[in-house]
Formats: sequence, structure tokens, C-alpha cells
Amino acid sequence: MLGTAALLAVVIGSGIMAERLAGGNVAIALLANTLATVGGLYVLIEVFGPLSGAHFNPAVSAVMTMRGELPARELLPYIAAQLVGALLSAWLAHAMFDLPNVELSGKVRTGTGQWIAEAVATAGLLLVILRAPAGRASILVATYIGAAYWFTASTSFANPAAAFGRMFSDSFAGIAPSSVPGFAIAQLVGTALGLALNAAFEQRKQRVGHPNLIESSGEHGDAR
Amino acid sequence: MLGTAALLAVVIGSGIMAERLAGGNVAIALLANTLATVGGLYVLIEVFGPLSGAHFNPAVSAVMTMRGELPARELLPYIAAQLVGALLSAWLAHAMFDLPNVELSGKVRTGTGQWIAEAVATAGLLLVILRAPAGRASILVATYIGAAYWFTASTSFANPAAAFGRMFSDSFAGIAPSSVPGFAIAQLVGTALGLALNAAFEQRKQRVGHPNLIESSGEHGDAR
Amino acid sequence: MLGTAALLAVVIGSGIMAERLAGGNVAIALLANTLATVGGLYVLIEVFGPLSGAHFNPAVSAVMTMRGELPARELLPYIAAQLVGALLSAWLAHAMFDLPNVELSGKVRTGTGQWIAEAVATAGLLLVILRAPAGRASILVATYIGAAYWFTASTSFANPAAAFGRMFSDSFAGIAPSSVPGFAIAQLVGTALGLALNAAFEQRKQRVGHPNLIESSGEHGDAR
Amino acid sequence: MLGTAALLAVVIGSGIMAERLAGGNVAIALLANTLATVGGLYVLIEVFGPLSGAHFNPAVSAVMTMRGELPARELLPYIAAQLVGALLSAWLAHAMFDLPNVELSGKVRTGTGQWIAEAVATAGLLLVILRAPAGRASILVATYIGAAYWFTASTSFANPAAAFGRMFSDSFAGIAPSSVPGFAIAQLVGTALGLALNAAFEQRKQRVGHPNLIESSGEHGDAR
Repeated sequence: MLGTAALLAVVIGSGIMAERLAGGNVAIALLANTLATVGGLYVLIEVFGPLSGAHFNPAVSAVMTMRGELPARELLPYIAAQLVGALLSAWLAHAMFDLPNVELSGKVRTGTGQWIAEAVATAGLLLVILRAPAGRASILVATYIGAAYWFTASTSFANPAAAFGRMFSDSFAGIAPSSVPGFAIAQLVGTALGLALNAAFEQRKQRVGHPNLIESSGEHGDAR
Repeated sequence: MLGTAALLAVVIGSGIMAERLAGGNVAIALLANTLATVGGLYVLIEVFGPLSGAHFNPAVSAVMTMRGELPARELLPYIAAQLVGALLSAWLAHAMFDLPNVELSGKVRTGTGQWIAEAVATAGLLLVILRAPAGRASILVATYIGAAYWFTASTSFANPAAAFGRMFSDSFAGIAPSSVPGFAIAQLVGTALGLALNAAFEQRKQRVGHPNLIESSGEHGDAR
Repeated sequence: MLGTAALLAVVIGSGIMAERLAGGNVAIALLANTLATVGGLYVLIEVFGPLSGAHFNPAVSAVMTMRGELPARELLPYIAAQLVGALLSAWLAHAMFDLPNVELSGKVRTGTGQWIAEAVATAGLLLVILRAPAGRASILVATYIGAAYWFTASTSFANPAAAFGRMFSDSFAGIAPSSVPGFAIAQLVGTALGLALNAAFEQRKQRVGHPNLIESSGEHGDAR
Repeated sequence: MLGTAALLAVVIGSGIMAERLAGGNVAIALLANTLATVGGLYVLIEVFGPLSGAHFNPAVSAVMTMRGELPARELLPYIAAQLVGALLSAWLAHAMFDLPNVELSGKVRTGTGQWIAEAVATAGLLLVILRAPAGRASILVATYIGAAYWFTASTSFANPAAAFGRMFSDSFAGIAPSSVPGFAIAQLVGTALGLALNAAFEQRKQRVGHPNLIESSGEHGDAR
């Protein structure tokens, strides 16, 4: 709950600050919002990881339950805590920026492009979480979200709790309540897509016939 | 003393440079100020850590004394050195930028929102310091401060010595003397809040019944 | 195929987003495009490295075949997969941003300066891949490409598959079909230059008579 | 020679690109110039470190000779190679950006503030190099230079070879020939200052009586 609250307070708070200072230049506002989110997410995963697993995201908790890493009886409490935390985050960010405690966003985010983007963003997030080398998940997840703020048309919520919490802030990072169901469904589709791709990669890894390539790629880290 | 002087010379100097070049675009100025601070803080913690612990912050030194990591008789000399360093920093930054050696800031920073922000920023800083995994405190603390420049309404001083030193520069990073007491009190509250949260986390860690979750989260680094 | 598609979807998608938001300020657009590319490339190399080597680049695959790290019979399938992935990337980015599925770029990128730049960018990329210390290739390659977006006049494609895919998007990151052959030839020259420099460095390393300097430099990491 | 040429080609080239795209917004131009320099310097130290020590800087080579890590008979060849590389860098950057091969900068950089800034920047650079923990010099040096671009009034050349090479480019990163001697003298003073501070730190480290603090600071990485 505290981790999700902190994460979304970073997202919403830096969005408010960025919008106020940027004087209408949306690219600069999103750039600042992105950098604050990447930094905050990285720190929060490192700090909350040993305490709770640092999910902050119902889709991630659900996948962890499916993989047997989160006991099934804890899934609903986890999701409830994430949603409460998301609500708290808007309240905390608004308290810091002298805004009304309770409000709903009027920012409509809808359309096929945005839904495809949310599905892609969520699938990518799951692949990064499930395939990150040991010890690098925090930096990879944070970096991924930063890139996805820009390469997806939806600025990559990729998290139903984020969509829920950002509904309560009529600011840069907000989302109109009417747009939340579309985002949530797209994120569900993306979760399934991510799991399917991951399963395909797992299979390929077992069948693959070139240990040399795979091992050398680990060392030489060839790229692009 | 030298570490605090260097840190605040980075903060004040990059603020002056950014304000001069940004031509009134405050978001770009704060972005440059943020990146310079993150980089400078990371380097300073790495370089001064083995020499003095790299506190640079009376609140941190006080907490370290409470935890028995800094001898009680060294606390006052530490704080005195931090305040003298903070004063030197303004002088050094002004010498580099051809500004008057002695001046007071006229930048009023006050109000409930800013005070809540400073308390949140300081509590978060302490949690990051006290809970950072071994060997990652330098990068986590620097990254945290960078995010907090944006997600808090006060741009996250989170350090009484910083508030003291930045009082002597009537520039982008300055703070009016009349605003310093409010910031210092908020930082004190934030310190207490950070300690309380940390104690609660410690307790939870001891009581928790799911070693699998915690261990797997360390490996899979699940997130968001 | 998926890795190349993802990489170029990041490049093209973040280019579209950046151009839309930047309101004509090309420097800010390229800055956002750069940061998204660096982050995306880093994550993709980490995630796809163990699966396929994370080449995403025909020039890199060809060099790996020459060095015996990719079986010769796999080179053509690799290149075909990269080109198909590049085509898919434009389609995916356009689907997310509600743009026409099929279009050709009108952005002419030509001239001696641009060709020299592409040769330099590709040579540098190969040197980074071939000489990166174990375990650091992902971060070094991504960082290199980010710097090369700015220090080369061509914004550093350094990848024939990237030139191919970006041809199909008439947006910020696009390249006119008529400009692709020049870029591809320059990249080929750069590949040869990179291999020649690497061979010269290898030789020097064997002949060098100051183990102390080399060892100490590893430890002290002296610089600039 | 190649390392210095590459480093300054990054600095000059990204300066030209940034100035062209930024449309008069100097803060954005310097931000892009900074990020390209940080990335390029980090990569170059990693790649050239095992080959030559990755000095790229006569002041660093001189200090390494004083400390017995570079044989005295190699100092002059090192400095000559750095200066030739610096000259090549301007030529290479100009070739990429279709600018005249030979030109002199008209950008006057002078005055007490700038000289103090260069001395501070060079002293800081030496402290970072001499005190960086094993294996972290590359990232610390690159990060330091990035911060110093902003917190010093001179944008931190901190390198006589850089001042020499940047004299030959009448662009964003250039420096008028008449300003070079002042910068070189300030860098010499900064080198002496850095060595003196380092010696003082060494002494303190030997005399210090609180191993617990120092050790715990290594682990807890307390900060700010």
C-alpha cells in the first residue's frame, strides 16, 4: 500500500510540478515527469522489494500468484492494498501541491491506438519482469517504464492500480474515469500477451541448439 | 565540511547556470539543476563515504548517532562542519559566477503544502538511507533526491544544512531566511516520520511468514 | 525479429510522440527520442541477449559470423528476421499512434557529412561491442548509441535494418528510401573500419610492454 | 590519440548538433551537449582503459607519472598524442557536420570567475580519479564531468588538451585561442590543489580513530 502510494505520488506530483513549470511545453513536462518516475520507481523497487516484493501492480501480483510466487490467499489483500495506496497517492500529491483533496480527472484517454499501446506496454512490462537477469529487475523495470512513457501512445500506465489512482487527480498525469475501463481491459489483454510470449521464449530456450551463441552472447553482450 | 560545501556548490552553481541559460523556462532550469545535483551527489557520496560517512546533512548525522554509528561526542562537530561547509558553498558558487560574496535570498518558500512536502521528502530520504541494499546507497540516495526535486512541492531540500546554505544565495536555488525555520521544523517532523516507518518495517520483516515471497522477490525483482 | 521490431518501435514511436509534443522544438524532440532509445535498447539487450544474442543489426550478425560466434548457416535467417522485424516495427508504432499502416518517409538524409557520420557511428558501435568488458555490453552499447544520436550529423542509425525499417514511417525518425543506399554503404565502410581498428588494438595489446600501467588503469580507472 | 580525438569529437559534434537544433535555447543545447559528453566519456574510458589507461588529459597523465603509474619517458609521447588527437577531433567533427576543416573559435571565455571555475573543476576531477572505489572510476568520472558542465561557470573543460582542441572549432563548444592560456594556468593550479587535498585526505585516513564509522558508512552508504 505504501509502495503504490509512493509510486503514484511520484507520478502525479512530478506531473503537477512539471506542468506548472513548463509553461505549456508538453514535451518538457513529460520529460521531467518521465525522469522523476524512472528514478522514483527504481528506488521504490529496491527499498520495498525485500518487504513485499514491490509489485505495486495488480497485474503483476496476479501473474506472481499464477507462478506460485505469491500465495493465492494473499492476492486479493495485495490488490486491495494497491488500490487503497493508489487513492492515497492522489490525496498526498494534492496535499503537497495545495490542490483539492478530492477531484476527478477530465482527461479523456481513449481510442484504438491508446488501447493497443496499453496492451503493448503491459506485455513488455511482464516480459521485463519475468526475464530480467537476477539482480537487475529494479533498474530494467524502471528504465523500461521510462522508455514506454514515450514509445507508446498512452504514456504507458501498464498498471490497473495506476489507472485507478490517477483517476482522482485532474492534472497532467490524470485519466478520466470513463477512460479507465478501456485501459484496464487493454492491460488485461497485454498481461495475457506477455505471458504467452514468455511461454514461447521459455520453450525456444529449451529447444535451442546453439549453446555457444547463447553463452557467448552473455559474455560479449553483442547488441543492436 | 568539504563534502557539504561541494554538494551545495553543485546545487547553487548549477541553479545559477541553469537560470542564466534557460531564458525564463523554469522547467528546463530545474531539469538541468536536477541532473547536476543527482550526478554531483552520487560522486560525492562515493568519494567522501570512506572518509567521513558522507552525511552532508545534520538530520542524517543525528540519526546515525541514535543508531550508534556516529559517536555522540562527534555529532556537534559534524553539524558545525556541515553548517560551515554550507556557508562556504554559497561563497564558492558566487565566486565562480562573479556574484557578490555575501547576500541573502529573497525567495519565499512557505505554506502547508511546502511543509508537508519537506516532511515527506526527509522521511523518504531516511528510509532510503536506512533500507538501501549494501553498496547501493550512493546511487539510490542520489536518484531519490533527483525524483524528489520534482514530486515534492518544495523541490526537496530534505536537509537543514542545505536550507541554511541556500539562504545565502539570492538565486534559483535560494531560500529566504524567513522560510528556513518552517523548512527545518518540517524536516525534523520528516526525520521522526522516517524513523517510525523504518521501525514498523523492521518489525514486519521479523514477523513476516512468507520467506519464499521475499526471497523470490529478491531474485525476480518483480515490480510496478 | 521481435527484438528488432521492439527496438525500432521504440525509436519510431518515441520519435512520433516527441515530435507531437515538442511543438517545433527539435532539440527537445531529439532529446526525448534519445533517452527513450537508450532505455529501450538497454532493456532489450538484457532481455533478448540470452535468447538470440540481441543483435538486432545485420552488420553485427555478419561480424559475429566472421568471428565464429554465429554459425554461417544462420546469418541469412538472422538478417531476414531483422528486416521483417524492422518492417513490423513501423506498422506497430503507426498502429499505436493512429497513423496509416503503410507509408514511405520523405525525409531526405544525404551528403558527405552524413555518410562520414554513419561510417564513424558504425565503426564506433562495433568497437564498443567487440571491446566491452564482460557483462557491460548492454549498458555500453545503449549509452554509446545515445551519445552518437548527438555527436554524429546523421543521428547514428549505424544499422542497415534500422535504415530499412525507418523508411516506412514518414515521421521524426524516418528516412527517405532514396537515402537508404547511401546510409547502407556508409555503414558497410564503418563496419570494415571498426574491424580494422579492433584488429590494430588487439595487436597492440599483445605487444605492449607496460603491464603495470594496464593493470593499474583497470583498478584506478583513470580518465579524461 | 584516438581516445582523445573521439572524446573531443563527441564534445564538439554534439555541441554543433545541439546548437543547430535548439533554436537559440542555450540551456537545452547545453543539456544535450552534457548528456552526450557523459555517455561518450563513460564508454571511452571503458573501451580505452585496458589499452592505454584512458587518460585523454595531460594533467591526468602528469599526475600518473608523479605517482609512478606512467613511466616518465612516456609522459611526453602521451601528451603529444593527446594534443594531436585534440586537433583531429575538430577536423572529424567538422567533416561530419559539413563545416570548414580549419577554423579558430571566436568564443571568448575569460575572467576571474571562469578561472576559479576551471581550477575547481580540475581539482575535483583529480580527486574523483584518485579516490574512486575500484571499478567505478569510469562512471564516476563521466558523471562528475556532467555535473561540472553546470555547476562551474566555465562548463568545466578541466583538460588542457580539450582547451587546445576546442580552439579549432568556432562552434558551441569552442574557445578563443586568446582564452586558452588562462584556462591552462587555472587547470594547472587546480591540479596542484587536487593533489594537495588528496594528500590531506590520505593523511586523515591514516590518523582517523573511528573504524566503525568508516566501515559502516561503506555498508550503509549514508548520505546527503
